[in-house]
Amino acid sequence: MLLDAAREAAAEAVGCRPDELVFTPSGTRAVHSGMAGVLAGRRRVGRHLIVSSVEHSSVLHMADAHEADGGTVTQVAVDRQGMVTTAAYVAALRPDTALACLQSANHEVGTEQPVAEVAGVCREAGVPLLVDAAQSLGWGRVEGDWSVVTGSAHKWGGPSGVGLLVVRKGVRFAAQGPVDERESGRAAGFENIPAIVAAAASLRAVQAEAAQEAARLRELTERIRARVPRLVPDVEVVGDPVRRLPGVVTFSCLYVDGEALLHELDRAGFSVSSGSSCTSSTLTPSHVLKAMGVLSEGNVRVSLPFGTAEEDVERFLEVLPGTVAAVREKLGAPTGEAVVQEEEVLVVDSLGKRCPIPVIELAKVIGSVPVGGMIRVLSDDEAARLDIPAWCEMRGQEYVGEEPADQGTAYLIRRTS
Amino acid sequence: MLLDAAREAAAEAVGCRPDELVFTPSGTRAVHSGMAGVLAGRRRVGRHLIVSSVEHSSVLHMADAHEADGGTVTQVAVDRQGMVTTAAYVAALRPDTALACLQSANHEVGTEQPVAEVAGVCREAGVPLLVDAAQSLGWGRVEGDWSVVTGSAHKWGGPSGVGLLVVRKGVRFAAQGPVDERESGRAAGFENIPAIVAAAASLRAVQAEAAQEAARLRELTERIRARVPRLVPDVEVVGDPVRRLPGVVTFSCLYVDGEALLHELDRAGFSVSSGSSCTSSTLTPSHVLKAMGVLSEGNVRVSLPFGTAEEDVERFLEVLPGTVAAVREKLGAPTGEAVVQEEEVLVVDSLGKRCPIPVIELAKVIGSVPVGGMIRVLSDDEAARLDIPAWCEMRGQEYVGEEPADQGTAYLIRRTS
Repeated sequence: MLLDAAREAAAEAVGCRPDELVFTPSGTRAVHSGMAGVLAGRRRVGRHLIVSSVEHSSVLHMADAHEADGGTVTQVAVDRQGMVTTAAYVAALRPDTALACLQSANHEVGTEQPVAEVAGVCREAGVPLLVDAAQSLGWGRVEGDWSVVTGSAHKWGGPSGVGLLVVRKGVRFAAQGPVDERESGRAAGFENIPAIVAAAASLRAVQAEAAQEAARLRELTERIRARVPRLVPDVEVVGDPVRRLPGVVTFSCLYVDGEALLHELDRAGFSVSSGSSCTSSTLTPSHVLKAMGVLSEGNVRVSLPFGTAEEDVERFLEVLPGTVAAVREKLGAPTGEAVVQEEEVLVVDSLGKRCPIPVIELAKVIGSVPVGGMIRVLSDDEAARLDIPAWCEMRGQEYVGEEPADQGTAYLIRRTS
Repeated sequence: MLLDAAREAAAEAVGCRPDELVFTPSGTRAVHSGMAGVLAGRRRVGRHLIVSSVEHSSVLHMADAHEADGGTVTQVAVDRQGMVTTAAYVAALRPDTALACLQSANHEVGTEQPVAEVAGVCREAGVPLLVDAAQSLGWGRVEGDWSVVTGSAHKWGGPSGVGLLVVRKGVRFAAQGPVDERESGRAAGFENIPAIVAAAASLRAVQAEAAQEAARLRELTERIRARVPRLVPDVEVVGDPVRRLPGVVTFSCLYVDGEALLHELDRAGFSVSSGSSCTSSTLTPSHVLKAMGVLSEGNVRVSLPFGTAEEDVERFLEVLPGTVAAVREKLGAPTGEAVVQEEEVLVVDSLGKRCPIPVIELAKVIGSVPVGGMIRVLSDDEAARLDIPAWCEMRGQEYVGEEPADQGTAYLIRRTS
């Protein structure tokens, strides 16, 4: 009875029938099961899958698995704000497309996607659209004529260990892997009843206050978006300025190591995240920032939870400039010294140095070549491949290209201003 | 840090290295991932899988999926106590055996399996043994030279939503499905840290008191085992009387509908389970009782949790006889009236009647045919196929066999006493 009541409450919040909704052990599991079920259910149609290039890793991991299993995948590109276009989805749709996936909003930069429009063109093509709504379900229902929705309770302030998988009636769905009699055969294993009840209750509670709280948080994040670039030099605020989640703001700081900044902010009492090029667990650049073509170094994501106090935001804005300056000072941020000069091309040897050092060294020497002059940065850090072009774009310098070097890669930059 | 500490505590309790243990969202998921990983990792050896016929449904579902995917499965039979023999595992092992599975103890009847011995013969054959230890981990480590162990926190009194998967170093293992960087790539999705911490703490807590509590509960379940057959007529206590879990006792009552008995006991304040032939969710007979060849009707499983009071057990024994009698009276338990007599064969028409009615009607008429006389029971309830032979065995009557009838199946019984 508790499970039935939770299912009804969650279905009401999502905007679906109770028998279309099952609880899974996580949002990741909901995504994996949802994608696998539709791909298998529509296998006769074909094995083509469409995803955006900024989806959550759970979607991209499943896409990788699908490709390894012989399927084909089209990644739809995003613009510099991290947004897809409906036209790009239309172009990606094929007669053998089994499934298209699009997040409701991006988890790193907060950009909201045109889900309702994309759902419309998918519906016209007879292709189900799976919407990973992990970031937005607490704020309200997913709009449009979607086919599958997934969510994750801890993202709306509910407990860990509960995901949602909603599959509209009429969508061909064949659950994969061993199943049991639980959750309509779509999520095997003993149900986590206490957590499920808490998940449904918390979803209803946050949605009830969503409109009011969204307006309040949007004002606070707008304050951060507007003031950070004025308070801190060489900062790029990323993500769409208008179509965005209320409580997320992300920016990248030139000449800063993201992890170092996180630690400093943590000491000041602020828990922020980084989709940085140097996250400690994987050391690979954020695929989202990469797809957007924006700077990935010194990346900070500020998430304001429900009820965040204005004073905390103000204190964050007070603390940030000094913190960034301290990190830059430790790394030896640019002052304008040249390194090794050879003929017309200035060579910067950053081999063995990790981001953001190569960019810092580039910035230090750009002023020492004449306008029109070339700089050749040698680097063996993979993140330089993203960050040097992004720095050029931010600084209005020309990124010429890269070429293999004896060691690592040489990046060519022409000073244009 | 919390996750690392929980992993170390759980590993100490299980008797493995911390890096051999990952947390999963449920015991079912641990079984599915563990079996799939070993089957894929050892695919070059072959695709033969061995399971016992009384494994938990999670193991059998995975075996079904493996078979549907082109693998082969051998089910090892059990004796009337629900126990496998090591010899049967030896006989089942083949050069292409990729994996063998054996529960530490049965979840319905409590019988402990000879896991250490079976692990030994599997080790000699170079075949990993996966032990589903869901029922026993709270009582202590799994003995013997096993390769994979799975467990479930809510089974030892911990929270829902946490399973354990332990894979010994050296076991070939290829995680299946999309994975991420969490839990060594063996359990994707956001970790449920609070529940994992609680799971590890509770495992350590219950194991610390396990020896003392096991002795106490074993005395209480022994009391139930000994007294129920004296208090209630026509009862069979099932499961091994000696090699068994401390806190579980299971019995079957002739002429009783298991669900009805559960409801009556619930009204008296006792929450018991039934691996009955008539569970409301599936309406299929318990595969465990079927494999054991014992009566499945009127089945009751009494589980005594940690700390169960002696008074509660005594009250249960006071309430049970009257409750069973009341259920039997409602169903019209046998008094000895004949139904339809034809020549030498007495025909009992139980078509359209659900268990335990066919057995009740058989019991009512057995006295009305002479010794040596035959009874033909017509039934279209699948459970009759198990329960009529089981009744014959309990009553010392001869079960002759079954044959198709115009409607349903005819079961032939010869009165021998």
